[in-house]
Amino acid sequence: MFEAKIYITFKEGVVDPQGITIKGALESLGYRSIYDVRMGKYIQMKLNTQDKEKAESDLKQMCAKLLANPVIEDYRYEIEEKCGK
Amino acid sequence: MFEAKIYITFKEGVVDPQGITIKGALESLGYRSIYDVRMGKYIQMKLNTQDKEKAESDLKQMCAKLLANPVIEDYRYEIEEKCGK
Repeated sequence: MFEAKIYITFKEGVVDPQGITIKGALESLGYRSIYDVRMGKYIQMKLNTQDKEKAESDLKQMCAKLLANPVIEDYRYEIEEKCGK
Repeated sequence: MFEAKIYITFKEGVVDPQGITIKGALESLGYRSIYDVRMGKYIQMKLNTQDKEKAESDLKQMCAKLLANPVIEDYRYEIEEKCGK
């Protein structure tokens, strides 16, 4: 069993309306020190396989094909083996 | 300047419809080894302050008040000092 953590973020220069909205909302709550907010996605995935190489290559394909939009988003992932359950 | 990374995830036991949909979509693309997918949020925030303690306490409050829903979501954050710009 492998556990993967995938982080998907907008590429630099891409406008992030959700981040801008969050920044505005936090400022209206009185937090004045915020310089920038960028919103991304965090996906936790459990893979039921023994083969780390296969898991990694699958993960890369999944990110490129479905999870991230490579035109405007970057992705990175961490993968670690989980023993037991 | 501090840079914070905030990870917001559903608490265990809370149904995650987005995660279930992603799992289904990946399976329909032929990835059979997926055991579980959980969708979360990943927020990158830049704080324009010199005071790390203040930055941390602000961050905690922001997560509890606005960024996460403490009834169904957990949050954690990392904070590090950035030199220069």
